[in-house]
Amino acid sequence: MSATELDVVCIGNAIVDVMTRCSEQTIADMGLERGAMTLIDAAQAESLYTSMGPTLETSGGSACNTAAGVASFGGSVGYVGKVRDDQLGEIFSHDIRSIGAVFETPAAKHGPPTARCFIFVTPDGQRTMNTYLGACVGLGPDDIDSTLVERAKLTYLEGYLWDPDEAKQAFLKAARLAHVAGRQVALTLSDAFCVDRHRASFLELVNNHVDVLFANEEELLSLYETSSFDEAARAVRGACQVAAVTRSEKGSVIITEEAVHEVKAEPVEQVVDTTGAGDLYAAGFLYGFTQGGDFPACGRLGSVAAAEVISHIGPRPHTTLARKAGL
Amino acid sequence: MSATELDVVCIGNAIVDVMTRCSEQTIADMGLERGAMTLIDAAQAESLYTSMGPTLETSGGSACNTAAGVASFGGSVGYVGKVRDDQLGEIFSHDIRSIGAVFETPAAKHGPPTARCFIFVTPDGQRTMNTYLGACVGLGPDDIDSTLVERAKLTYLEGYLWDPDEAKQAFLKAARLAHVAGRQVALTLSDAFCVDRHRASFLELVNNHVDVLFANEEELLSLYETSSFDEAARAVRGACQVAAVTRSEKGSVIITEEAVHEVKAEPVEQVVDTTGAGDLYAAGFLYGFTQGGDFPACGRLGSVAAAEVISHIGPRPHTTLARKAGL
Repeated sequence: MSATELDVVCIGNAIVDVMTRCSEQTIADMGLERGAMTLIDAAQAESLYTSMGPTLETSGGSACNTAAGVASFGGSVGYVGKVRDDQLGEIFSHDIRSIGAVFETPAAKHGPPTARCFIFVTPDGQRTMNTYLGACVGLGPDDIDSTLVERAKLTYLEGYLWDPDEAKQAFLKAARLAHVAGRQVALTLSDAFCVDRHRASFLELVNNHVDVLFANEEELLSLYETSSFDEAARAVRGACQVAAVTRSEKGSVIITEEAVHEVKAEPVEQVVDTTGAGDLYAAGFLYGFTQGGDFPACGRLGSVAAAEVISHIGPRPHTTLARKAGL
Repeated sequence: MSATELDVVCIGNAIVDVMTRCSEQTIADMGLERGAMTLIDAAQAESLYTSMGPTLETSGGSACNTAAGVASFGGSVGYVGKVRDDQLGEIFSHDIRSIGAVFETPAAKHGPPTARCFIFVTPDGQRTMNTYLGACVGLGPDDIDSTLVERAKLTYLEGYLWDPDEAKQAFLKAARLAHVAGRQVALTLSDAFCVDRHRASFLELVNNHVDVLFANEEELLSLYETSSFDEAARAVRGACQVAAVTRSEKGSVIITEEAVHEVKAEPVEQVVDTTGAGDLYAAGFLYGFTQGGDFPACGRLGSVAAAEVISHIGPRPHTTLARKAGL
């Protein structure tokens, strides 16, 4: 491995998205948790898939979408995540490498197949996700390559990693390695229900191990168990270096000890599919951040990336974000 | 199997599409045959895939896209095609069954993996295809279920079936069974280069075994080895009951012994991806035809279906075509 510096290394659950469009009625009939990410087992995955309409498959995984976004801005990225040595694993590996990312996590040779996330997109563009973790549960501390983490200005971790047991250890190892090397650590809270499952440890992480925190409004409210955005914003202020909180069409708020910056959302002609919106906001923000941009500039890049990804189906950019942002 | 009558049974190469967007320069640099379908072997498939950008996977296969289109109009359909018992094969099988199609061709338990078609979509929406036939070469006469063919008002065959050796026998068996049962047979010429590979047998087929012929302008010119559309149109007239010839934005021409009908193309806001345009035209036409519609009405349904599929990425309808057509 070359010793070139990387902008961002992303660590997350390596997942292939299986997407379908459906009506609001279908969400209700199937008893799905609208807008959320729900974990399902192999049997539920099979039953859910059987009841789904025609699908479209594409590489996903929250942190991997972010890596793809940073690369689309022109940043250099690495990715760590676990697939199986099966067809979906090959697709996942191909896609992340095709954008120039360093991806060397060995594929599992045994055990469950590559993870998949069944995504139901309703006419308003909202996505409801059901994830079968599959091979992701095999990601462990041994998969964290210290050289890779040390090479990166920043290591980005998704909160979803807290779901598979061993991945949590991998997460902590990576955060520790990054800080020992004088690098920075970013975390996304991922999903309000994920925060609910892991609130105490997330609070500990945010207060002690995270430099840059990403959350949407709902996740931040869940973290601080409040229904008041102002209260949650006060609570997070100073807990880490910077918290970037997305608020859908209201844009985002960037909170540091010194200041609070409000950033507008970029206009979108039609919201087709919100899958990846938060992941791509993080990508834009982190690209700006690792290039030394000021916070409003970082936020604007986040807005540009999020606007691009919600204007089409699929969680990764379809156009070069650097050009989109006029860089 | 129930004895209910089906509108259309489609027989073809069962293929998963692996799609990517690219520039005109990429097509030139990679030496691809722009706008055509080229057959590739396993080694070429691997090398091509390695050089491709990020991809999006979706069930394809020309005749299967047509089956999906007929179903989207509300028609009842069956499909015959060969996949392997692998992940891509599962996706393919799921998608065709999820639209209500009868699909009972057993998946191969050995041999090459499920076929894939690498599709490069240029900014003008044109698609350039490279197909690795994989498990399709395992489709043979034994896979043709006589009951299924006899149940259908019409059996639709794709010219691409002429490429894998055994599939040709399957094709002929199906055509024979259909006619013996007093049913009709439709053929699409599929691709100008495919016509070039198999011109003599296609001419024999059209003259003796086909009731409804689908072709685009280029394919028809290739069949009759002429550069004059009028000459080709004269040649096909009366060769079969009806020939429906698509001419992109110029619409289509429906040629019977008695008359020639010109049908307009439906307006499209933006051509995003022409993959599946011909397949969906055939779907609309065949839905109308099997419902007893007159030729101009059949052509209009073809135009509506083609317009829908080229306005988004992917070869199958994203909306209910029956509603789109005001049925």
